[in-house]
Amino acid sequence: MLKTISVSTRSRNEMIDITDPVREVVRSSGIKDGIVTVFCPHTTGAITINENADPDVIHDMLLTLDALIPHHRQGYRHSEGNSDAHVKSSLVGTSETVILQGGSLLLGSWQGIYLCEFDGPRSRKVHILVS
Amino acid sequence: MLKTISVSTRSRNEMIDITDPVREVVRSSGIKDGIVTVFCPHTTGAITINENADPDVIHDMLLTLDALIPHHRQGYRHSEGNSDAHVKSSLVGTSETVILQGGSLLLGSWQGIYLCEFDGPRSRKVHILVS
Amino acid sequence: MLKTISVSTRSRNEMIDITDPVREVVRSSGIKDGIVTVFCPHTTGAITINENADPDVIHDMLLTLDALIPHHRQGYRHSEGNSDAHVKSSLVGTSETVILQGGSLLLGSWQGIYLCEFDGPRSRKVHILVS
Repeated sequence: MLKTISVSTRSRNEMIDITDPVREVVRSSGIKDGIVTVFCPHTTGAITINENADPDVIHDMLLTLDALIPHHRQGYRHSEGNSDAHVKSSLVGTSETVILQGGSLLLGSWQGIYLCEFDGPRSRKVHILVS
Repeated sequence: MLKTISVSTRSRNEMIDITDPVREVVRSSGIKDGIVTVFCPHTTGAITINENADPDVIHDMLLTLDALIPHHRQGYRHSEGNSDAHVKSSLVGTSETVILQGGSLLLGSWQGIYLCEFDGPRSRKVHILVS
Repeated sequence: MLKTISVSTRSRNEMIDITDPVREVVRSSGIKDGIVTVFCPHTTGAITINENADPDVIHDMLLTLDALIPHHRQGYRHSEGNSDAHVKSSLVGTSETVILQGGSLLLGSWQGIYLCEFDGPRSRKVHILVS
């Protein structure tokens, strides 16, 4: 079962916990065992799995990504001025696959699923396939 | 259905749009709904999804990867002289999973699937599984 | 079929070849064709696929990751002191998908599957789903 959710982002760089909406899609699918594919159809966004307990982890992650891949860099040609966001997208990755077992996502105790925004604020979509 | 395609690369660092060959494999499979796994069986290559409209995005991505992970680094031990390519491979990732719906890849408007070459030119293979 | 394996790590940063245990899970599943999802349920670990022949490649990869993402960075807020490990986890990625064909993992000649430890030594789990 495929469902697409919408997420509004509020900053240029942001990570939004979408674990609950993903769980809701899983629940409504009625599927108990399989895999869940979470896919970001945007080239300046990404999906990742990381800690959902201490928000400082997210702060530190965005800080590091910005230090490694600053907004502007000598030699960039892309005229939209968001080449950094495209690079972050490919390094973090467009999708995540989560194992579904007995109706539950097989995530670790501290893991949440995040939509990463690297060129916001924007309206974003996330595709969730339960199969 | 599994198919392997061959790609010849022409530079040391290059990103080659393989969206059309992937679509062709999907079409010939006859499968309409599911997932498509695109896998690079090389340790100095990768698969990513990013913008397929403005080629400057690809230029800027390869520029950034080279700035972050230069060809040579103090302390490298691997005697083949391509440790940078192995690192890029693990950071960008060996495979991508794309959702297939109604016979179409559920990619965003600007998304294309790329084989990344980080130690070319070489002859490369890409495995495509429609399931 | 789902199986969880345990791995004890011995250093803060380490990459452990888990290809053989993954193959063992595949064998015991009896499944011949499909995909194998290898998932790390920890936010300071990761799964990657890279060279399994020359251990110097792994040395050089961990060296590069440490150069890019040092243990400490001005501005880090997370009080556990392992923000670097969380960033490495999201960049390398939480899981890998491998194609299974005729009972064999469709890996390239030099590819092995690795559990990456970025905040060890610890006891780690890896979930392996054959589907």
